[in-house]
Amino acid sequence: MDSLTLIGVASIVTAGLTTAIGTAFPALGEGRSVSQALTAIAQQPDAAPTITRTLFVGLAMIESTAIYCFVLSLILVFANPFWNHFL
Amino acid sequence: MDSLTLIGVASIVTAGLTTAIGTAFPALGEGRSVSQALTAIAQQPDAAPTITRTLFVGLAMIESTAIYCFVLSLILVFANPFWNHFL
Amino acid sequence: MDSLTLIGVASIVTAGLTTAIGTAFPALGEGRSVSQALTAIAQQPDAAPTITRTLFVGLAMIESTAIYCFVLSLILVFANPFWNHFL
Amino acid sequence: MDSLTLIGVASIVTAGLTTAIGTAFPALGEGRSVSQALTAIAQQPDAAPTITRTLFVGLAMIESTAIYCFVLSLILVFANPFWNHFL
Amino acid sequence: MDSLTLIGVASIVTAGLTTAIGTAFPALGEGRSVSQALTAIAQQPDAAPTITRTLFVGLAMIESTAIYCFVLSLILVFANPFWNHFL
Amino acid sequence: MDSLTLIGVASIVTAGLTTAIGTAFPALGEGRSVSQALTAIAQQPDAAPTITRTLFVGLAMIESTAIYCFVLSLILVFANPFWNHFL
Amino acid sequence: MDSLTLIGVASIVTAGLTTAIGTAFPALGEGRSVSQALTAIAQQPDAAPTITRTLFVGLAMIESTAIYCFVLSLILVFANPFWNHFL
Amino acid sequence: MDSLTLIGVASIVTAGLTTAIGTAFPALGEGRSVSQALTAIAQQPDAAPTITRTLFVGLAMIESTAIYCFVLSLILVFANPFWNHFL
Amino acid sequence: MDSLTLIGVASIVTAGLTTAIGTAFPALGEGRSVSQALTAIAQQPDAAPTITRTLFVGLAMIESTAIYCFVLSLILVFANPFWNHFL
Amino acid sequence: MDSLTLIGVASIVTAGLTTAIGTAFPALGEGRSVSQALTAIAQQPDAAPTITRTLFVGLAMIESTAIYCFVLSLILVFANPFWNHFL
Amino acid sequence: MDSLTLIGVASIVTAGLTTAIGTAFPALGEGRSVSQALTAIAQQPDAAPTITRTLFVGLAMIESTAIYCFVLSLILVFANPFWNHFL
Amino acid sequence: MDSLTLIGVASIVTAGLTTAIGTAFPALGEGRSVSQALTAIAQQPDAAPTITRTLFVGLAMIESTAIYCFVLSLILVFANPFWNHFL
Amino acid sequence: MDSLTLIGVASIVTAGLTTAIGTAFPALGEGRSVSQALTAIAQQPDAAPTITRTLFVGLAMIESTAIYCFVLSLILVFANPFWNHFL
Amino acid sequence: MDSLTLIGVASIVTAGLTTAIGTAFPALGEGRSVSQALTAIAQQPDAAPTITRTLFVGLAMIESTAIYCFVLSLILVFANPFWNHFL
Repeated sequence: MDSLTLIGVASIVTAGLTTAIGTAFPALGEGRSVSQALTAIAQQPDAAPTITRTLFVGLAMIESTAIYCFVLSLILVFANPFWNHFL
Repeated sequence: MDSLTLIGVASIVTAGLTTAIGTAFPALGEGRSVSQALTAIAQQPDAAPTITRTLFVGLAMIESTAIYCFVLSLILVFANPFWNHFL
Repeated sequence: MDSLTLIGVASIVTAGLTTAIGTAFPALGEGRSVSQALTAIAQQPDAAPTITRTLFVGLAMIESTAIYCFVLSLILVFANPFWNHFL
Repeated sequence: MDSLTLIGVASIVTAGLTTAIGTAFPALGEGRSVSQALTAIAQQPDAAPTITRTLFVGLAMIESTAIYCFVLSLILVFANPFWNHFL
Repeated sequence: MDSLTLIGVASIVTAGLTTAIGTAFPALGEGRSVSQALTAIAQQPDAAPTITRTLFVGLAMIESTAIYCFVLSLILVFANPFWNHFL
Repeated sequence: MDSLTLIGVASIVTAGLTTAIGTAFPALGEGRSVSQALTAIAQQPDAAPTITRTLFVGLAMIESTAIYCFVLSLILVFANPFWNHFL
Repeated sequence: MDSLTLIGVASIVTAGLTTAIGTAFPALGEGRSVSQALTAIAQQPDAAPTITRTLFVGLAMIESTAIYCFVLSLILVFANPFWNHFL
Repeated sequence: MDSLTLIGVASIVTAGLTTAIGTAFPALGEGRSVSQALTAIAQQPDAAPTITRTLFVGLAMIESTAIYCFVLSLILVFANPFWNHFL
Repeated sequence: MDSLTLIGVASIVTAGLTTAIGTAFPALGEGRSVSQALTAIAQQPDAAPTITRTLFVGLAMIESTAIYCFVLSLILVFANPFWNHFL
Repeated sequence: MDSLTLIGVASIVTAGLTTAIGTAFPALGEGRSVSQALTAIAQQPDAAPTITRTLFVGLAMIESTAIYCFVLSLILVFANPFWNHFL
Repeated sequence: MDSLTLIGVASIVTAGLTTAIGTAFPALGEGRSVSQALTAIAQQPDAAPTITRTLFVGLAMIESTAIYCFVLSLILVFANPFWNHFL
Repeated sequence: MDSLTLIGVASIVTAGLTTAIGTAFPALGEGRSVSQALTAIAQQPDAAPTITRTLFVGLAMIESTAIYCFVLSLILVFANPFWNHFL
Repeated sequence: MDSLTLIGVASIVTAGLTTAIGTAFPALGEGRSVSQALTAIAQQPDAAPTITRTLFVGLAMIESTAIYCFVLSLILVFANPFWNHFL
Repeated sequence: MDSLTLIGVASIVTAGLTTAIGTAFPALGEGRSVSQALTAIAQQPDAAPTITRTLFVGLAMIESTAIYCFVLSLILVFANPFWNHFL
C-alpha cells in the first residue's frame, strides 16, 4: 500500500464524511429557523417583511457553516496539497 | 489488494454513507418546516400565500445541503479524480 | 480475496445501509408532517384543501431525499462503474 | 474463504439489517400519524372522512420507504447480480 | 472454517437481530397508537367506533413492517437460498 | 474450533440477545398503553369497559411482536435447522 | 480452547446479559404504569378498584416479557441443549 | 489460558455487569413511582392509604426484576454449574 | 499471563464498574424522589409527615439496588470464590 | 508484562473510572434536588425549615452512593488485596 | 509507510473532522438564536432594532467558534508545521 | 515496553479522563441549581437570603463530588503508590 | 515509525479534536443565552441595557472555555514541548 | 517505540481531551445559568443586583470545574512528573 493510495483513500473518506456531517446540523438549524418563521408570520402577519429579512440573514449565516465544510471537501478532492506533493 | 481496488472500495462506501447521512437530517428539517407550515396555515388561513412562499424558500435552502452531499457522492462515483489518476 | 469480491461485498453492504439509513429519517419527517396535517385539518376544517396541497408538496420534497438514497443504491447494485471496470 | 461465501455472507447480513433498520423508523412515523389521527377524530368527529383519507395517503407514502428497503433486501437474497456473476 | 459453517452462523445471527430490531420499533409505534386511542375514547366516547376502526387499520399497517422482518428471518432460517446452494 | 461449536455459540448468543432486545421495547410500549389507560379511566370512568377492551386488543398486538422474538429464540435453541444439519 | 469451554463461556455471558437487558425495560414500563396509576387514583379516588385491577393485569403482561428473558437464561444455565450435547 | 480460568473470568464479569445493568433501571422506575406517589399524596391527602398500598405493590413488582438479576449473579458466583463441571 | 493475574484483573475491573454503574442510576432515582418530595411539601405542608415517611421507605428500596451492587463488588474484592480456588 | 504491572494498571484505570462515573450521576441528582428545593422555598417560604431538613437528608443519601464509589477507589489504590498478594 | 504519508493522512482526516464537528454545533446554536429572534420580533415588533442588533452580536460570537475550527483546519492543510518539518 | 512506562501512561490517561468526566456532570448540576436559584429569587425576592444560603450549601455538596475526582487525579499524578513501588 | 512522527500525528489529531469538541458546546451554550436574551428583551424592552450587559459578561465567560481549548491546540501545534524535545 | 515517546503521546492526547471534555459541560451549565438570569431580570427588573451577584458567584463555581481540567492539562504538558522522570 503505497503513499499515494493511502492519501487518496483518506481524502475520499474525509471529504465524504465532512460534507455529510457538516451539512446535517445546519439543515436542522435551518429547519428550526424556517419553522419558527412560519409561526411568527402566522402570529403577526404585519411583521412579515421584518421577519423574512431577519430569517434570510440568519439562514445565510447558518448556511455559511455548511459551505465551510463543502469547500474543504472540494479542496480535499480537487486541490489536495498532500496529494499534489506526492504526485 | 492493489491501489485501484482500495480506491474503489473507499469511493463506494463513502458515496453511500455521504448520501445516507447527508440526506437524513435535511429530511428531518424539512419535515419540521412543513409540519409547522401546516399549523401556521390552520392558525392564520389568510396568510397562506406568505407562509407558502417562505416555506418554499426555506425548503430550497435546506434541500441545498442535501444536494451538496448527493453531488459529492456522484462525483465520487462517476468523476473520481483519484480513481481516474490510477486508471 | 480478489478485487472483484471486495468491490462486490462493499457494494452490497453500502447499498443496503444507504437505503436503510437514508429512508429512515424521511419516514420520520413524513410521519411528523402527516400527523401535523391531521391536527391542522381537525383545527381548521375549512382550510383542508390548502393544507392537503401544502402537505403533498412537502411530502414530495422529503420523499426526494429518500429517492436520492434509493437511486444511489440501485446504481451501486445494477450499474456500478467500479464493478464494470473490473469485469 | 472463497468469493462465493463472502458474497453470500455479506448479502445475508445486509439483507437482514436493511430490512430491520429500514422498517423500524417508518413504523415509528406511522405510529405517530395514526395516534395523531385518533386525536384529530376525537377533537373534530365531523372531519373524520377527510382525516382518514389524508391519513391513508400519508401512511402509503411512509410505508413506501419501508417497501424500498424490503424490496432491496429481497433483491439481495433472491436476485443478487453479484452472486449470480460468481455462480 | 468452511463455507457452510460461515453461511450458517451469518444466517442465525442475522435472523435473530433482524427480528429483534425489526419488531422493537413497531411495538413502540403500536404502544403510542393504542395509548392515544384510549385518550381519544376517554375524550369523545361517542366516536369510539370510528376511533377503534382507524386504530385497527393503523395497527395493521404498523404490524406489517414487523411482519416483513419476521418473514425475512424465517426465510433466512428455513429457506435460505445461499445455504441451499452450498448444500 | 469446529463447525458444531461455532453454530452452537452463535445460536446461544443470538437466542439470548433476540429475546432480550425483542421483549424490551414491547414492554415499554405496553407500559405506555397501560399507563394511558389508567389516565383515561380516571378521566372518563363511564367508558371503562370500552377502554379496557381496546387496551387488551392493543396489548395483544404489542405482545405478539415479543412473541415473534421469543419463538424465534426457542427455534434457535431447540429446533435449529443448521445445528441439526451438522449433527 | 475446546468446545465445552466456549459453549460454557457463551452461555454464561448470554444468560447474564439477557436477564440484565431483558428485565431493565419492563422495570421502566412498570414504573411508568405504577406512577400513572397513583396519579389516576389521586385524581379519581372513586375509580380506584377499576384502576387497580387494570394496573395489575397490565403489570402481569409487562412482567411476562421479563419472565421470558429470565426463563431463557435459566434454560441456558441449567438445561442447555448445546452443552448437554457436548457432555 | 485454561478452561477454568476462562469460565471464572466470564463468570466474574457477567455477574458484575448483570447486577449493575439489571438494578439500574428498576432504580429509575422506582424513583419515578415514588416521586409520583408523593405528588399524588400532596394532591389528594385523603387517598394516602390507597396510594401507599398501590405504591408498595408496584415497588415489589419492579424490585422483583432487580432480584432476578441479583439472583442470577449469585448463582453465577456461588453455584455456577459450568464451573462445577470443570472442577 | 497466568490464571491468578487474569482473575485478579477481571475482579478489579468488574468490581469498579459494577459499583460505578450500579450506584449511578439509584442516585438519579433518589434525586428525582427527593426533588418531588420537596415540591409536594411546598404544595401541601400539612401532609409533610406522610410525605416524608413515604419518601424514606421509597429511598430505602431504591438504595437497596445500589447496595446489591456494592455488596457484590465487595464479595468480588474480598471474598472472591474464584480467586480463593486458584490460591 | 508481568502480573504486578497488569494488576497495577487495572487498579489505576478502574479507580479513576469508578470515581468519575460514580460521582457524575449523584452530582446530577443533587443538582436536581437542590434546584427543586429552591423552587419550593420560593413557592412556600413558610415551609423552609421542613424543606431544608428533607433536602439535607436526601442529599446525604444521594451522596452516600458517591461515597461508595470513592471508597472502593481508595481501597483499590491504597489497600488492594490483589496487589498485596503479588507483593 | 513513511513519516510524510502518516502526517499527511492525519492532517487530512483531522482537518475534515475538525471542520465538520466544529461547525455543526454553532449551526444549531445559530438556528436556535435566529428562530428565537423571529419569535421575539413577532411578539414585540417595536423592539425589532434592539433584537436584531443583539442577534447579530450573538451570531458573531457563535460564528467565531466555528471560525476557530475552520482556521485550524486550514492551518493543518496549508501551513502545517509538522508537514513542513518533514519536507 | 517496561512496567514503569505502562504505569505512567495509565496514570496520565486515567488522571485526565477522571478529572474531565468527573467535573463535567457537577458543572451541569451546578448550572441547574444556579439557574433555578435565579428564577426563585425573581419569583420571591423576599426569600433571597434563604435561597442563597440553601444554594451555597447545595453547591458545596455538588462541588464535593468534583473534588473527589480532582483529588484522586492529583494522587495518581503526584503520589501514585504503584509508580512509587516500581521506582 | 519513529518518535518524531508519532508525536506529530498525536499533536495534529489532538489539536483538531480539542478545538472541535471544545468549541462545540460553548456554541450551544451561547446560542441558548442569546436566544433567551432576545426573549427577555421582547418581554421587557425597558430592561434591555441590563439584559445586554449581563448577556455580554456571560458570553465572555462561556467563550473563555472555548478559548482554553483553542489556546491549548495552538500550543500543541506551534509550541509543543514534547515535539521540541525530540527536535 | 521507547518510553519517552509513549509518555509524550499519552500526555498530548490526554491533555487535549481533558480540556475539551472538561470545558464543554461547564459551558453548557454557564449558558443555562446566564439564559435563566436574563429571564429572571426581564421578569423582576428590581431584583437585578441580587440576581447578577448570585449569577457571578455561580458562574465562578462552575468555571472552577473547567479550571481544574485546564490546570491538569497544563501540568501534563509543562510539568509532567512522569516525563521529567524519564528525562
